[in-house]
Amino acid sequence: MRTRAAVALEAGKPLEVMEVNLDGPKQGEVLVEIKATGICHTDEFTRSGADPEGLFPAILGHEGAGVVVECGAGVTSLKPGDHVIPLYTPECRECPSCLSRKTNLCTAIRGTQGKGLMPDGTTRFSMLDGTPILHYMGCSTFSNFTVMPEIALAKVRPDAPFDKICYIGCGVTTGVGAVINTAKVEVGAKAVVFGLGGIGLNVIQGLKLAGADMIIGVDINPEREAWGRRFGMTHFVNPRDVGDIVAHLVNMTKTPFDQIGGADYSFDCTGNVSVMRQALECTHRGWGQSIVIGVAPSGAEIQTRPFQLVTGRVWKGTAFGGARGRTDVPTFVDWYMQGKIEIDPMITHILTLDEINKGFDLMHSGESIRSVVVY
Amino acid sequence: MRTRAAVALEAGKPLEVMEVNLDGPKQGEVLVEIKATGICHTDEFTRSGADPEGLFPAILGHEGAGVVVECGAGVTSLKPGDHVIPLYTPECRECPSCLSRKTNLCTAIRGTQGKGLMPDGTTRFSMLDGTPILHYMGCSTFSNFTVMPEIALAKVRPDAPFDKICYIGCGVTTGVGAVINTAKVEVGAKAVVFGLGGIGLNVIQGLKLAGADMIIGVDINPEREAWGRRFGMTHFVNPRDVGDIVAHLVNMTKTPFDQIGGADYSFDCTGNVSVMRQALECTHRGWGQSIVIGVAPSGAEIQTRPFQLVTGRVWKGTAFGGARGRTDVPTFVDWYMQGKIEIDPMITHILTLDEINKGFDLMHSGESIRSVVVY
Repeated sequence: MRTRAAVALEAGKPLEVMEVNLDGPKQGEVLVEIKATGICHTDEFTRSGADPEGLFPAILGHEGAGVVVECGAGVTSLKPGDHVIPLYTPECRECPSCLSRKTNLCTAIRGTQGKGLMPDGTTRFSMLDGTPILHYMGCSTFSNFTVMPEIALAKVRPDAPFDKICYIGCGVTTGVGAVINTAKVEVGAKAVVFGLGGIGLNVIQGLKLAGADMIIGVDINPEREAWGRRFGMTHFVNPRDVGDIVAHLVNMTKTPFDQIGGADYSFDCTGNVSVMRQALECTHRGWGQSIVIGVAPSGAEIQTRPFQLVTGRVWKGTAFGGARGRTDVPTFVDWYMQGKIEIDPMITHILTLDEINKGFDLMHSGESIRSVVVY
Repeated sequence: MRTRAAVALEAGKPLEVMEVNLDGPKQGEVLVEIKATGICHTDEFTRSGADPEGLFPAILGHEGAGVVVECGAGVTSLKPGDHVIPLYTPECRECPSCLSRKTNLCTAIRGTQGKGLMPDGTTRFSMLDGTPILHYMGCSTFSNFTVMPEIALAKVRPDAPFDKICYIGCGVTTGVGAVINTAKVEVGAKAVVFGLGGIGLNVIQGLKLAGADMIIGVDINPEREAWGRRFGMTHFVNPRDVGDIVAHLVNMTKTPFDQIGGADYSFDCTGNVSVMRQALECTHRGWGQSIVIGVAPSGAEIQTRPFQLVTGRVWKGTAFGGARGRTDVPTFVDWYMQGKIEIDPMITHILTLDEINKGFDLMHSGESIRSVVVY
């Protein structure tokens, strides 16, 4: 079949919307009609050429929602008409990682996915001249139709709106999940969130959901203060307004009884390794945990004195918010439908596929929290 | 009163054994007769001048055991004749840290202890000419008699031999505690221990106690293999015999089912920041935890790609093995008396106070695991 898609032909160039060929689903694969897709910083990381592992030509996009059109041989958990969210972190429930009960990072198809291929080592997309086009993060939601492995699709309730729940495919789950799955924040905790973009705001709403007492947002963009407060942020700090940001945050978290100070939890949503260090060091001596969420530039390294760890701080990271896609994503959709988590106000821009490059511009200008392409 | 002590007069010089003045215990303080003291790398870190926070003149030593001689006003938990182990990490049970239930790092007297002073801001030791001599880590066990805060003394059973249980005052608790309190290693785990000295061997016996399946020791000194095996090490790696030590360890921990590989837990007992990085990176994707125990040189920093954390590895540290001194140290002494943990073979050299400098020589030559001074 043919489908319309925004193709990244080479690094650093705008995406090109065109007709492409799409082969049908093979064994264990599913053809999905994508109804909506978010545009995420990770897409831009690859599009721009900053990602050293980026491969081209490819169809980017990994934050989608859609409907099953056709199932390949052997597919048992899905049928045509099912509503699904594509998972860039699959959940096979059979690999050492899935069976460990200790991580969400399924490794069943890691090798081929990283190369832009389906599990059998080939691509389903090609140019009209036959040139193969690579998949991206196993999803390629910047195509109206896509083929994905069954283990990389979460079946969700049919009454949830595609143009909102697509955001659960990455940003919402990453932010809220980092709080509840990775940090396991407890009621009454004090937390600091660095970077109030599409991930940071979801960390904030996760912290509110978990019952945190102090939710301190940190951003150099003063306009983000109102955004943070809307989702539960209790304090805002612009690093440009204070001297030593670490000392400032430690001071803010002191109480009359606890004059040591420091956050119980901190979250880096910037991808900046200097900020990651500040995030670790502003946590409380003895038990503070800092969770790295942001994706750092190629080659960048985090650094600190080991004394920070020896005196009880813990440095962690999270991918896809520690969520098991097929198991946890449907629950996130339920939470959205129940009003337990908010999405609508974060979807600031709705675009057509033809306007997709505008979505990257809005991201760079800081105007959008999330732009969503609706097919 | 007067007491004999080994005094560190200035950085980099051998200790000088001499008579010094010792004032009696003030409010909340206890006079202790030290019966035996281990010589630890941390003493050498300060003696040598490598510790930028080292203060002189001081009486070093922090790994002791002794008997209460006299209690100052207000002391309620101890009486003369009680057997005690000095605690460089006190346990006041009243400060924000002790009451947090999340750390052993009591902060009640942190400020004065770091300056070599008793909690009232003065010293009990002085030269015969009246010049004050500083305390060290709140203990100063290189003196036959010392004065300590009540909250920094663990009362232990009277039938335990001083020349063995003194080692519980630092090395044993640090190593075994890192396994059971900080890492909380589970039965069947795979672990790697970097550095098979006085701490590393105790990590190994802690891992054996916790039921770990694979206990891989790493040391550049081939003579340490026999030492490691004696306490439960199952595999030995000399980094000089292999190419990429991280890849080598990851390969060793692969199974037919799990071809990802990596340790569930790793422990750095070297203080070398490059080794700390290897220790993190050899742990398993998704859940590996690395615990920093060693004390790094001044100014040294640990470094890694944040991707290591984002893909599920956790970087932690431990001080005094996460043990609450007054609560947990008596249990460690019980475990020693029950044969649950071994100490005797690790005490390789018994010295007199006059021979104390020989203890540092034995440490540098790698001949000793632990030298103990018996008064």
